[in-house]
Amino acid sequence: MTGSINVIGYALATLGPAIGVAMIFSSAINGIARQPEARGALMGAVYIGFAVVEALAILGFVLAFVIR
Amino acid sequence: MTGSINVIGYALATLGPAIGVAMIFSSAINGIARQPEARGALMGAVYIGFAVVEALAILGFVLAFVIR
Amino acid sequence: MTGSINVIGYALATLGPAIGVAMIFSSAINGIARQPEARGALMGAVYIGFAVVEALAILGFVLAFVIR
Repeated sequence: MTGSINVIGYALATLGPAIGVAMIFSSAINGIARQPEARGALMGAVYIGFAVVEALAILGFVLAFVIR
Repeated sequence: MTGSINVIGYALATLGPAIGVAMIFSSAINGIARQPEARGALMGAVYIGFAVVEALAILGFVLAFVIR
Repeated sequence: MTGSINVIGYALATLGPAIGVAMIFSSAINGIARQPEARGALMGAVYIGFAVVEALAILGFVLAFVIR
């Protein structure tokens, strides 16, 4: 059996952030559908939330290279 | 098979916090969509909640380096 | 394959508390969005709930160092 267990580690690290970012955008889409004029106020919170959740997956990507 | 099981540890440590932070921002987005003027009062609670939940994932990131 | 299974232990210990703390803050944000003037009364209960749920994850962090 070859390969590195770090790849499985990164794979598991995408599970939560992928669902999380989808939840954030999903809420934003529902909110914009209900009140299109609130779009500007919404998207500020969306971008902050997206950045901090996506960062968790990117840290897993970095970790797979750094740790041996 | 190479790699470190610590990467899997970090990966599992992102699952809960990623979904948790997404739940917090999702609630905030829904709240802003319903009452855009309540945005300032909401975001205070959002940042506190985000910080304490995200911290759990960051502790896992630190642990992956510290523990051998 | 290197690394310590204690990191996986801590990681699994964050899953429940992260989602739990997120549920508490999510409810608080929904409550503030509905009645912004109730914010002070809400946050008292939020901090107590947060402390006892977050403590479970911190205990897992301590355990990862103490037990070999």
